[in-house]
Amino acid sequence: MSRIVAFETTDIRFPTSLSLDGSDAMNPDPDYSAAYLRIVTDAADAIDGHAFVFTIGRGNDVQVAALDALADHLVGRELEPLLDDMGATNRELIGDSQLRWLGPEKGVMHMAIGAVVNALWDLKAKRAGLPLWQLLSRMTPEELVALVDFRYLTNALTPDEALAILRAAEPGRAEREAELLATGYPAYTTSPGWLGYSDEKLARLCREAIADGFGQIKLKVGADLDDDIRRLRIARETCGEGYPIAIDANQRWDVSDAIAWVNALAEFDLAWIEEPTSPDDVLGHAEIARGVAPVRVATGEHAQNRVIFKQLLQAGALAVMQIDAARVGGVNENIANLLLAAKFGVPVCPHAGGVGLCEAVQHFSMFDFVAVSASREGRMIEYVDHLHEHFVVPTEVRGGVYIPPLAPGIGMEMKADSRTAYTFGAVDAAA
Amino acid sequence: MSRIVAFETTDIRFPTSLSLDGSDAMNPDPDYSAAYLRIVTDAADAIDGHAFVFTIGRGNDVQVAALDALADHLVGRELEPLLDDMGATNRELIGDSQLRWLGPEKGVMHMAIGAVVNALWDLKAKRAGLPLWQLLSRMTPEELVALVDFRYLTNALTPDEALAILRAAEPGRAEREAELLATGYPAYTTSPGWLGYSDEKLARLCREAIADGFGQIKLKVGADLDDDIRRLRIARETCGEGYPIAIDANQRWDVSDAIAWVNALAEFDLAWIEEPTSPDDVLGHAEIARGVAPVRVATGEHAQNRVIFKQLLQAGALAVMQIDAARVGGVNENIANLLLAAKFGVPVCPHAGGVGLCEAVQHFSMFDFVAVSASREGRMIEYVDHLHEHFVVPTEVRGGVYIPPLAPGIGMEMKADSRTAYTFGAVDAAA
Repeated sequence: MSRIVAFETTDIRFPTSLSLDGSDAMNPDPDYSAAYLRIVTDAADAIDGHAFVFTIGRGNDVQVAALDALADHLVGRELEPLLDDMGATNRELIGDSQLRWLGPEKGVMHMAIGAVVNALWDLKAKRAGLPLWQLLSRMTPEELVALVDFRYLTNALTPDEALAILRAAEPGRAEREAELLATGYPAYTTSPGWLGYSDEKLARLCREAIADGFGQIKLKVGADLDDDIRRLRIARETCGEGYPIAIDANQRWDVSDAIAWVNALAEFDLAWIEEPTSPDDVLGHAEIARGVAPVRVATGEHAQNRVIFKQLLQAGALAVMQIDAARVGGVNENIANLLLAAKFGVPVCPHAGGVGLCEAVQHFSMFDFVAVSASREGRMIEYVDHLHEHFVVPTEVRGGVYIPPLAPGIGMEMKADSRTAYTFGAVDAAA
Repeated sequence: MSRIVAFETTDIRFPTSLSLDGSDAMNPDPDYSAAYLRIVTDAADAIDGHAFVFTIGRGNDVQVAALDALADHLVGRELEPLLDDMGATNRELIGDSQLRWLGPEKGVMHMAIGAVVNALWDLKAKRAGLPLWQLLSRMTPEELVALVDFRYLTNALTPDEALAILRAAEPGRAEREAELLATGYPAYTTSPGWLGYSDEKLARLCREAIADGFGQIKLKVGADLDDDIRRLRIARETCGEGYPIAIDANQRWDVSDAIAWVNALAEFDLAWIEEPTSPDDVLGHAEIARGVAPVRVATGEHAQNRVIFKQLLQAGALAVMQIDAARVGGVNENIANLLLAAKFGVPVCPHAGGVGLCEAVQHFSMFDFVAVSASREGRMIEYVDHLHEHFVVPTEVRGGVYIPPLAPGIGMEMKADSRTAYTFGAVDAAA
């Protein structure tokens, strides 16, 4: 038996706004940040659990305060019972009857719970000597179903239905794992498309994306229609006919604006329109999906929890589901999200970028391929080439595919030097 | 001109869990709490702005941290431009491009913005020498429409439609204000119905509710069906045939459980079923509404913002809309919510109770009657007789009606002594 002896949180911020990396119609000047958590035990193996909530600057301190509010649930506890029944551990954290008022299951408090759950999974995977995707892919369907909180899901997905999905995928697991290790998981890149970039930089980055083997690019839109037309023309001419180009409005529009704007861009043969409106607006997304067909609607990086994903799927409001590793309640809730997508036959193309999101979210797509949807068809993981150098095991993308990580853990561990240097308020971070 | 010179926050908690006041199926042991805000100016009038976010204990410190994250938006600013254009002030706070990531417009960060907006309205109303409901009721339709952030609403409610609603109510304002002052606003009481109370206490409080003139009571349900049947039988026998009895499940059920449970209680002639499932589940509420008719579905105290209310109304998911004074983004967003309800012809029966929620939310119902829906038909404000003694202007309920407050402000100002005594960690609060 070992005990959790420390629950260490850090406010880490990178001054990315200085270069306009990550600028879009709603987020003109993000400072990519992490409300970082390290769970320390007294075990002889000296393994820590690392995870974080991603934010874009101001308010990262609020997110750290929310993490700190969960320390009492963990510090002093025996670790093994927590890790052995991660379903119960997840339900205990989600179910805190007083903290629940602050959501429930949404926003700052829910993301904090997600980071705690993720840090415990990091510990569990490191102890098992496996990357998270392999750890999950080797659990039985029954074990996986036990991880999911089915509360509020059963009118769309029952435990029995989830079990049937996982059992159907079981026979081919070994074969698909071998295929994944041999050929990787497809990536697309958002690097060319930030609003703050010049036309020349856009064209150059489009050429580089194709040369690097990416199967799709994505452009930020929604600030100015004429600009969007000009930038999409450059992208289309540079990439050529038939090359997939998606667009992302980052919640900029109301429903009718979204429909009109996307239809005004129809000539550019769009792969999808992402986040056309409020992430809370299930019915609005459904109306947009009908209004912009055949362009597909994608959303999910701000979907607060499995209840929103459930409804987006029930309403036919999305054709591409974009889970995020640090928005919802951690690994357990993302397993629910993958099962919902599989039930409704919708491909999952995770949101990534920011800081450390690529490192983490790839595990979910790889687990999905091996053990849930059993398919990579129409599926890609977003890739942005920022800030990977700060991670102990940085994402490896080559030839337009994610190379499956083999290092144990969830992939969110940031280098100690980087954590120190970019601690908010530290002298080095200002340099 | 005057300036904001201090933005003072306090973590205030009342140990209500000791008496089981406020116990329900999801909240067994709440400690009613306030993340309290006082905005201080350098004006000669010495008027402060007071507001708070209501929480139920743990995490109140996180809520205070979220308030503190907004101080930089206010401290040092000239006050009059902020108060003169509260529409712009509200949009500035909601629109902070970095803080927005923590919601957007939901949870801890959104409730903090709501408290700041409410504290500014408290200042504005006190400067005008009017209670909030009168201040709002004397603004022109054009001024009121300018307060609303219509982003994400226009597929259900346009500014022109809002203007038409307000203009239609304009001629009768003076008459209805006089009527309100003469007869008050109907109240119902939840005091008898907490799960932690004995059957004897339930029966006694039912008799008292009727003797006190309340037009409806509400019972908490959802922990155990046999208990619910026994308690509803006591309530029905005590109150008599035809007396309105509502029930509240506090999000306890999945969709099919909700339908089965409520139908199992059909013999008790229920006024409404409140919060049958997740507050995020618009489509689930719609399914429940169809499944339990003619029992009406009520919800809203945890509806995170106007986008959720919009969809609940669009989907026919609720028949009674329950706004809360401290959940959404403050006065401005609640004006949007009232306009949405009016557009869809659904009565608003606000959530209250907790600490200070009655004091605040009554202003919205009174404003609604005078200047928006122009009706009290089928409308009531919840009343719970807890903790009013801590407020500078406590709610006055007599003969089952709220007596319209005439003291200037929004009603959320807590007595200085109470704030000191119940500051979390203070010696007196442990007594």
